[in-house]
Amino acid sequence: MENHTIMSNSESSSEGLEADFLIHPEWLVPMSEKGLILSDHSLAILDNKIVAIGDTNSLKQSISARREIMLQNHLLMPGLINSHGHSPMALLRGFADDIPLRPWLEEKIWPAEGRWVSEEFVRDGAALAIAEMLRSGTTAFTDMYFFPDEVAKVALKANIRALLAAPVLDFPTVWAQDADEYIRKTTDLNDRYKNNNLIQVAFGPHAPYTVSDEPLRHISTLANELDIPIHIHVHENSAEIEEAVAKAGMRPLQRLNELGLLSQLLQCVHATQLQQEEIDMLAAAGVSIVHCPASNAKLASGLCQTQAILDAGINLCLGTDGAASNNELNMINEMRMAALFGKGAADKAGATSAWDVLQMATVNGARALGKEDMLGTLETGKLADCIAIDLGQINTQPVYDPVSTLVYSAQGHQVSYVWVDGKLNLEKGELTMLDSSELIANASAWAKKIG
Amino acid sequence: MENHTIMSNSESSSEGLEADFLIHPEWLVPMSEKGLILSDHSLAILDNKIVAIGDTNSLKQSISARREIMLQNHLLMPGLINSHGHSPMALLRGFADDIPLRPWLEEKIWPAEGRWVSEEFVRDGAALAIAEMLRSGTTAFTDMYFFPDEVAKVALKANIRALLAAPVLDFPTVWAQDADEYIRKTTDLNDRYKNNNLIQVAFGPHAPYTVSDEPLRHISTLANELDIPIHIHVHENSAEIEEAVAKAGMRPLQRLNELGLLSQLLQCVHATQLQQEEIDMLAAAGVSIVHCPASNAKLASGLCQTQAILDAGINLCLGTDGAASNNELNMINEMRMAALFGKGAADKAGATSAWDVLQMATVNGARALGKEDMLGTLETGKLADCIAIDLGQINTQPVYDPVSTLVYSAQGHQVSYVWVDGKLNLEKGELTMLDSSELIANASAWAKKIG
Repeated sequence: MENHTIMSNSESSSEGLEADFLIHPEWLVPMSEKGLILSDHSLAILDNKIVAIGDTNSLKQSISARREIMLQNHLLMPGLINSHGHSPMALLRGFADDIPLRPWLEEKIWPAEGRWVSEEFVRDGAALAIAEMLRSGTTAFTDMYFFPDEVAKVALKANIRALLAAPVLDFPTVWAQDADEYIRKTTDLNDRYKNNNLIQVAFGPHAPYTVSDEPLRHISTLANELDIPIHIHVHENSAEIEEAVAKAGMRPLQRLNELGLLSQLLQCVHATQLQQEEIDMLAAAGVSIVHCPASNAKLASGLCQTQAILDAGINLCLGTDGAASNNELNMINEMRMAALFGKGAADKAGATSAWDVLQMATVNGARALGKEDMLGTLETGKLADCIAIDLGQINTQPVYDPVSTLVYSAQGHQVSYVWVDGKLNLEKGELTMLDSSELIANASAWAKKIG
Repeated sequence: MENHTIMSNSESSSEGLEADFLIHPEWLVPMSEKGLILSDHSLAILDNKIVAIGDTNSLKQSISARREIMLQNHLLMPGLINSHGHSPMALLRGFADDIPLRPWLEEKIWPAEGRWVSEEFVRDGAALAIAEMLRSGTTAFTDMYFFPDEVAKVALKANIRALLAAPVLDFPTVWAQDADEYIRKTTDLNDRYKNNNLIQVAFGPHAPYTVSDEPLRHISTLANELDIPIHIHVHENSAEIEEAVAKAGMRPLQRLNELGLLSQLLQCVHATQLQQEEIDMLAAAGVSIVHCPASNAKLASGLCQTQAILDAGINLCLGTDGAASNNELNMINEMRMAALFGKGAADKAGATSAWDVLQMATVNGARALGKEDMLGTLETGKLADCIAIDLGQINTQPVYDPVSTLVYSAQGHQVSYVWVDGKLNLEKGELTMLDSSELIANASAWAKKIG
């Protein structure tokens, strides 16, 4: 634990280090090391950085903080990273439930989107989703949706990090006409945000079955040139694989491999259908996988073999997917789902432990963003994205192991403080930068039109 | 919907009917009919009964109520029935996670119970569990634990319904020395509570592998004489079945059948391992099954075939199990788990729908208690056990279908009102009959000793 008491600079042990916040939680879980839980430790934030983590008494003496926050019964940890979603679809939450993936998409979701999606829909939906995510401890999210520029504006206003995976499809939608236009809009978007502190851009080819070879090759080349991620739904369910084999004579991941897409820039979302040789291939290429347990279950897509993926050393992340197929954007609940479904998939109660899913939702998410040097753990010098969860409630008592309590018992609303980039986004459970009643009124107005 | 506008007595349409509460929710889901959602309807309570359900304007004119409660954005429905648990184990929440059933029981839970379980442990644990259950909308629960008398006292003080399945085992514990003593204590308990309005008693033989033939035969005879349920863990995982086949040459359910236990009085808890002929046998005998999705997943016990069980017409109920293997006693979350796991088990997104799990958690639970004439639905003349859930929060907006929203998006803390037996147990999210800080202090003190 020695390294956690080291201050941020050479004067750290002397008097006079300034901070915006000095936070004293009951437990500090930095995620720099699996299993590490610190007591009597505090954390200091200045501007957008963590400037000190150390023994509470020392920090109280050495740091002059504008705000000092005592968080009894709270666990302080890195902000949660939601590695896959479609934020504007929050407006379609509960619009079509208890229906399988293909008819759900083809008969319900795509027609509704065709009729209703606009810049205004995207702004209102993204704002509702971001509010729900911040309220339950998410500080960064990856989003695949039309009009990503509008999502960026809302994210900046709300002060949350976003990786915008701009969609690419073979067919026209309200946002673009053909693959070339989707791709051009993505590179334009990347030009606009490449120096932004909160917004990153990725290519978001929807899925192997909706994007043909040529645009996939083009995306691969451009992603390497620009050094930005590729985010794609792949092997979501068995029907996708059967159709691909019938059509192209090979499984989708084999096709992506032949097209040259497998690399550290690739994020494969869902991956419920993986053979061991595919797991090995993805591991060798350094691909990230994003697991969405609730959505996979709700659409009966299949079980992701999380323990086998972890055993292969693949960077496994966690995502909620969109609210139309989850139906919540709550990473605290999603961690529990991942732990429970992971045990079932492996037929082992020790599989996909509380610590495993906590890594998926923090450090692994940061690695997929290419930001593991700045995000995902609480360490001096890193960006100040952190959250505090109140475990002092009836449903989270008693506490034998605060990480077990967090994953298996805590509810999203027990997140009481959220900092993103050093700014306080949630204070005593209240959003500081978004007006919940306005968001709810907008959502309700949309549902009246759509429903 | 005609029948829902009928008043409780012949003077119902005239002025002057009195009520303690007249409740005006946004949506009223009586559960008397699958799919029925009433708008502009209200419900009146007098003493411990529902005395009217009907059109809001008519009821406002005809009923003089001591308290009239407007519940904007709220769904009013029958109280949730948690059909299986071990309430005092709330004190062992998080004590041993990520471990399979047998070592979890044999190396962790049973030794800890042997060392710590006492009347005081049971009182403090049951109170903590009951507080959590009431807070998240449970108005009746089935409990299998030692010192059930103590659970009864706490339940009566807290004003919640309980079916106490007093345990029976072959071996001695802190509560009894042998099967005869367990059984005698159970019949004594039943004598004490047989006329109680809130407390019912059942036999709780722990499992086929911990109770031998003679006590099981004796329990069967007594249960029939006394007309009380038998509540047993059975076919919880595959190891249980393999060991039974090796030892007795037959699967546990076959043994229970030969011993004469299969009847409408029997409640089979878990049942993750069922062959189709076993499903048919249970259906023919009128047995109830209690599904505990989170516990089964966490202990990697196997998947309960909920849709096949529903298709066979079996009365399928829902339970949280104890907090040591769940780790929450939150039936709102448990409904979502049941819906998600049920789809996976059936490989069909349409399986185990939101309405199915809502029936499991209400009407089906009431049927297992033998109280379907008094509980489980909101109907005039029935007992006033009802709950109101606030769907007007960010994570439950917009609302296309309030039952989908309830099951797939709502969180337990959104339950804001709970009535049990006509008394208000939870008001604006605050428990009225239990002191949360005292319960938390007690839990914390126990964990310090145990952990």
